[in-house]
Amino acid sequence: MCDAHVIATVKQRLLSRRSFLSTAPALAAASTLAAAPLAQARGGPQKVVDLTHTLTENFPTFGRDRAVSLKQRSTFDRDGQSSFYVTLNEHAGTHIDAPFHFSPDGMTVDQIPVGQLVCPLVVIDVSSRAGRNPDTAVTPDDLKAWRARNGDFPPGCCVAMYSGWERRANSNRRFRNADEDGVMHFPGFHGEAAKMLLEESSAVGLATDTLSIDIGASTRFEVHYTWLGAGRWGLEGVANLGELPSKGAIMIVGAPVWEGGSGGPSRVMA
Amino acid sequence: MCDAHVIATVKQRLLSRRSFLSTAPALAAASTLAAAPLAQARGGPQKVVDLTHTLTENFPTFGRDRAVSLKQRSTFDRDGQSSFYVTLNEHAGTHIDAPFHFSPDGMTVDQIPVGQLVCPLVVIDVSSRAGRNPDTAVTPDDLKAWRARNGDFPPGCCVAMYSGWERRANSNRRFRNADEDGVMHFPGFHGEAAKMLLEESSAVGLATDTLSIDIGASTRFEVHYTWLGAGRWGLEGVANLGELPSKGAIMIVGAPVWEGGSGGPSRVMA
Repeated sequence: MCDAHVIATVKQRLLSRRSFLSTAPALAAASTLAAAPLAQARGGPQKVVDLTHTLTENFPTFGRDRAVSLKQRSTFDRDGQSSFYVTLNEHAGTHIDAPFHFSPDGMTVDQIPVGQLVCPLVVIDVSSRAGRNPDTAVTPDDLKAWRARNGDFPPGCCVAMYSGWERRANSNRRFRNADEDGVMHFPGFHGEAAKMLLEESSAVGLATDTLSIDIGASTRFEVHYTWLGAGRWGLEGVANLGELPSKGAIMIVGAPVWEGGSGGPSRVMA
Repeated sequence: MCDAHVIATVKQRLLSRRSFLSTAPALAAASTLAAAPLAQARGGPQKVVDLTHTLTENFPTFGRDRAVSLKQRSTFDRDGQSSFYVTLNEHAGTHIDAPFHFSPDGMTVDQIPVGQLVCPLVVIDVSSRAGRNPDTAVTPDDLKAWRARNGDFPPGCCVAMYSGWERRANSNRRFRNADEDGVMHFPGFHGEAAKMLLEESSAVGLATDTLSIDIGASTRFEVHYTWLGAGRWGLEGVANLGELPSKGAIMIVGAPVWEGGSGGPSRVMA
């Protein structure tokens, strides 16, 4: 697509597009498209909440390696179209952990059945506790309290922790929150909570708004080994969970499908 | 996450997981999770169709460059967990074209409003024609014929061409279908159809099951310049459109959110 033919076309198109923009009345509606009420889509959801952080080069990562980098592949001026090669850390930004990430015989990211990626969403709010204690974890007691208020966990659900940690995502230092020994301190799930969900629910996913489904200070990664080891997936770095009800939302996980992957940045919505 | 501590934990976990698998009755349900009826999710869809091709290294691309490559970042045996760095061609596999791809002042992929990514799906079936003529295009007449049968295009919809071309996706040669001069031959939209949709609908997206929203033999990329230039997005390499009705499905586009991108491989469902 990058030949001389295109360059000429570009110039011609730029000109014709400008005149088109100034004359075509249909385009006056363009700026309102974003706000087009989704209720108009018969059978569609009433509201869509984006649960995804924008992925920037310096988005905080667990291992402090770069989240993403773009390399120019073509430019509009030279080639008539812009594009990039993108190099990603699979575990950066709002991303999924496939079972394979922590179990060599587990499903890779392209093998997770699509039916698991559209699921009821359970939100456990520990934000007030997390404000006082960054090492707090979602425990079996939190799960029981949710159940007492809301009934059983929905079949095939994703259970998400909302800690309010996302407010720190613009700062590597505050999102990782490492002490002088390099040990990070942020909320996550307790290993016993993961075990309880395996035994007492058919949940398919766990989600957090921090860098890990385990707490930051974990050295044993008990939740990763227990949960992913049992063929379930995890989501980390999820945004905007505080906008959702404890129960009733449907989560959509736009997991990537590169063959053999251990996970990857995902577009997550509810 | 990659220290000696983890290696010991891994071995311990592997053993405990094995015994857990053999004893915990809750896990007997694991193999049925994939088939868990989504109707159980109150308010959720009745059926989810994956519209995404698995992204392999040699998936056919427009410019014949590599679709994706994985580089080992950590291994389970050495580090207790497996992960990769992933390098992608933004325009490979089932992927979105952001307006910026063909218009320097257009939205980049992270700027497309999430409300546009959950939308009613219109399917125009040209598969019988495409079987006879690989240069066939979706024309204004096709759009009028759809409208005569189904009524107006739904607000904020995506209009997709189903040509059956996906059956060739396992062959670079057959998917690109280039002649001896290097000109490709596969179906797409006609420029006049794109203009008609801009003028007579509030469609936000165009989708095809081929390598381009233009026909393969296009040298002017009229649809790209017209459609993306008007602030709309495109989807290329979409799978399984033949499983969907002409009208009534809701499409979900899991577009990536790397800052400044021109598009990228997307998890697409309906």
